[in-house]
Amino acid sequence: MRMANLVANCGFCLSPAVKTHCSSQSHGHNNVIRFQNSKSSASSLNLRSCSKRSNKLFVTRASSAVQGQTNVTQTPLTGGQQASGQSSSRPKKVMVIGGDGYCGWATALHLSNKGYEVAIVDNLVRRLFDHQLGLDSLTPIASIQNRIRRWKALTGKTIQLFIGDICDFEFLSEAFKSFEPDSAVHFGEQRSAPYSMIDRSRAVYTQHNNVIGTLNVLFAMKEYSEECHLVKLGTMGEYGTPNIDIEEGFLTITHNGRTDTLPYPKQASSFYHLSKVHDSHNIAFTCKAWGIRATDLNQGVVYGVRTDETAMHEELSNRLDYDGVFGTALNRFCVQAAVGHPLTVYGKGGQTRGYLDIRDTVQCVELAIANPAKPGEFRVFNQFTEQFSVNELASLVTAAGAKLGLEVQTKSVPNPRVEAEEHYYNAKHSKLSELGLVPHLLSDSLLDSLLNFAVQYKDRVDTAQIMPSVSWKKMGAKPKTVSV
Amino acid sequence: MRMANLVANCGFCLSPAVKTHCSSQSHGHNNVIRFQNSKSSASSLNLRSCSKRSNKLFVTRASSAVQGQTNVTQTPLTGGQQASGQSSSRPKKVMVIGGDGYCGWATALHLSNKGYEVAIVDNLVRRLFDHQLGLDSLTPIASIQNRIRRWKALTGKTIQLFIGDICDFEFLSEAFKSFEPDSAVHFGEQRSAPYSMIDRSRAVYTQHNNVIGTLNVLFAMKEYSEECHLVKLGTMGEYGTPNIDIEEGFLTITHNGRTDTLPYPKQASSFYHLSKVHDSHNIAFTCKAWGIRATDLNQGVVYGVRTDETAMHEELSNRLDYDGVFGTALNRFCVQAAVGHPLTVYGKGGQTRGYLDIRDTVQCVELAIANPAKPGEFRVFNQFTEQFSVNELASLVTAAGAKLGLEVQTKSVPNPRVEAEEHYYNAKHSKLSELGLVPHLLSDSLLDSLLNFAVQYKDRVDTAQIMPSVSWKKMGAKPKTVSV
Repeated sequence: MRMANLVANCGFCLSPAVKTHCSSQSHGHNNVIRFQNSKSSASSLNLRSCSKRSNKLFVTRASSAVQGQTNVTQTPLTGGQQASGQSSSRPKKVMVIGGDGYCGWATALHLSNKGYEVAIVDNLVRRLFDHQLGLDSLTPIASIQNRIRRWKALTGKTIQLFIGDICDFEFLSEAFKSFEPDSAVHFGEQRSAPYSMIDRSRAVYTQHNNVIGTLNVLFAMKEYSEECHLVKLGTMGEYGTPNIDIEEGFLTITHNGRTDTLPYPKQASSFYHLSKVHDSHNIAFTCKAWGIRATDLNQGVVYGVRTDETAMHEELSNRLDYDGVFGTALNRFCVQAAVGHPLTVYGKGGQTRGYLDIRDTVQCVELAIANPAKPGEFRVFNQFTEQFSVNELASLVTAAGAKLGLEVQTKSVPNPRVEAEEHYYNAKHSKLSELGLVPHLLSDSLLDSLLNFAVQYKDRVDTAQIMPSVSWKKMGAKPKTVSV
Repeated sequence: MRMANLVANCGFCLSPAVKTHCSSQSHGHNNVIRFQNSKSSASSLNLRSCSKRSNKLFVTRASSAVQGQTNVTQTPLTGGQQASGQSSSRPKKVMVIGGDGYCGWATALHLSNKGYEVAIVDNLVRRLFDHQLGLDSLTPIASIQNRIRRWKALTGKTIQLFIGDICDFEFLSEAFKSFEPDSAVHFGEQRSAPYSMIDRSRAVYTQHNNVIGTLNVLFAMKEYSEECHLVKLGTMGEYGTPNIDIEEGFLTITHNGRTDTLPYPKQASSFYHLSKVHDSHNIAFTCKAWGIRATDLNQGVVYGVRTDETAMHEELSNRLDYDGVFGTALNRFCVQAAVGHPLTVYGKGGQTRGYLDIRDTVQCVELAIANPAKPGEFRVFNQFTEQFSVNELASLVTAAGAKLGLEVQTKSVPNPRVEAEEHYYNAKHSKLSELGLVPHLLSDSLLDSLLNFAVQYKDRVDTAQIMPSVSWKKMGAKPKTVSV
């Protein structure tokens, strides 16, 4: 299917359960025609031609849940309406860019469950990376179309779907004009440090995709949704590992007898992490110059896979990456323990970072949306709940494994990254707590559940993908194929 | 002429006086065949087919000056050989990326005059911007081919020319493999803040071009010239206008009882200035990860047009921009004074910045090259000589104009930028002085010469280009044509 042509010719919204057709210049959303959901299959995408009726946008939405489904959970419209603060009871609209990814999918479902009207914008390129690198999620994941259809069937809630690339401004503009988001949650970036360090073309791709995509989101907000609140996923990696306490985005500095509060100095350590640093600077500027309202969520390392919503049905399952490119420390360790592979500690293992449960990721994003930044405000929250060194994580997994009868070994492997392996680390993270975050702390029970999950799917593990395959120092200009 | 095809098929080096042909995979440069310069014209580019003889690179160079020219200046091989530090007397090779631009052209000639072997890498897009926006240099400038031919005729010195885009890594690789630079001076970026704020496409172009181009230079250095020293043009605008003293790149901070020296916090105020911030972060990372040696020259606002070398012949003249997009404050004021246009002070005029004479730009770059950074070192020099507020500049031009019989008016115009118009500003700039910089301070005599120069060419002034045409706040997503 040639998606680009479909986008250019007419409909940019390709949800099989939600067919959206609009005149290209229209902006108003008052004419909404509701149809019964026809349970269309993924193979019967019904894209009608675009009719250029002036000032009218025709949106068809399924208005009732499919009957006879199990596991239906009806959640009251809490978040969406509580956050409104308006006399209208219209649910708040949240555009989740990158809503098919690990954090994005969990967030989209969580917000939909909380009563927000959700649209996912995604070009699905994360799935392409898996094909190209010969990788796969530990958990089988359904297509985005089937995910959304299942969600609709279980809960009656519609998630709109806009398939396309936010680096394509024409596509992004149409999505903004059609959906008119109150908040845009932006996960839509290449999010792996090792991926960005495979070769020159991946480094360039990562910085181009992330920086230009975010610039386009900022321009779309300025042009079409001035009141929209940008909730942007940054990373704790923007700060690096300074020898002083890490604050939340800004630092008050006294120097030669004068004082100012300035952006916290950035020392990122991969082309991926650097792309987030670039984004933060660009966003801060647009808040000042254009009055954009933005929250930069400098997120730590996320672990876990189940959220209340993704646990409802196997077609809602989230992805779990354990490979050397997309797998993050704790998730990877649990899969290694499950298959009897030694835990791979890079170098000395004193590398300390902030971590959080994916159930807290979705909670944090909801809190940021429900308490938006003011116009012109550039706000930074450090989004993690606990600090661990890699060696501490290995010990925790080893102990949890023992309780399940797993004999877990640990081995140090040469560090493929360039980073301090022993360092001071004390990062503040109080702002989200002040907004009401109740963290899911890493505990034996969580580790058990993560390990059990890994054991359940261990036959799907490709052990060839576990070891690091990307070297920070050896990366070169020539294209590299990592696939085995 | 379809440059891309020429590049892809064979010769990437298009200097009319210097024809370079190489086998695409070769890297060694030992087989050099010298021919007498045949005084070829620009229209008789002689591009031979690429012969794939393994491990041999055939470079043809003119070995003697054209006779019978006036104004020949022979400068001893000082810089190039003094800087060598090797037993060999081979001149040091400097690749000047963006060598057809305002600072780049002056620098290329200066280094050639000082005995360095110089190659210019440029895609000439700066000339295209003038066509597209309906702008022109106050001074008539010759084509790059005629500039280089004239330089050769006057001095006997060859400047190699590589026409192409550094965002095209295949082109850049061939240039690095062929020339094997000891230093790469990187001016090859879109360098106007207003240009980057015209519309979305120019903002995206600026950040893509500058960030990806610099990434490519870093990868080319890692792949082909590990010992090469990068001298990168940054900007004082990376720092913004903090309420504390501005240091040179780094700041020692004591916070909660602990101390570290960290990158100075950045607060850039246009998409152009932000692109330089992004570059600085990317370069710092590659110094740490790959051992790249780099000097970031955070340059102030450059004024003046004549250097010793560009003054030798009218075909060597540098460009002088006075328009609202590419013209910088002092140059623009002198042109305004010459044509009887009021000096246009943006807002209150308290905006204070660092300034330097273009003769000091070329001197600073030479000092950086002659005293290279160590492997793995990321060094930052603040490159300016004096601080002035816009109001102070206006007063200086008014007084200098009076001495020439010009009645100079000043008027405040609404500030098209988003910036503090009254602020603390104290930026350090001692590192280049410590290396030996002897500054040309702004004086009455310099102002006189700049004003006289402007008066000489005042018939070429298009007064419609003087007023600011780009608004930081009003810029939008729709493509904008600034041409009158």
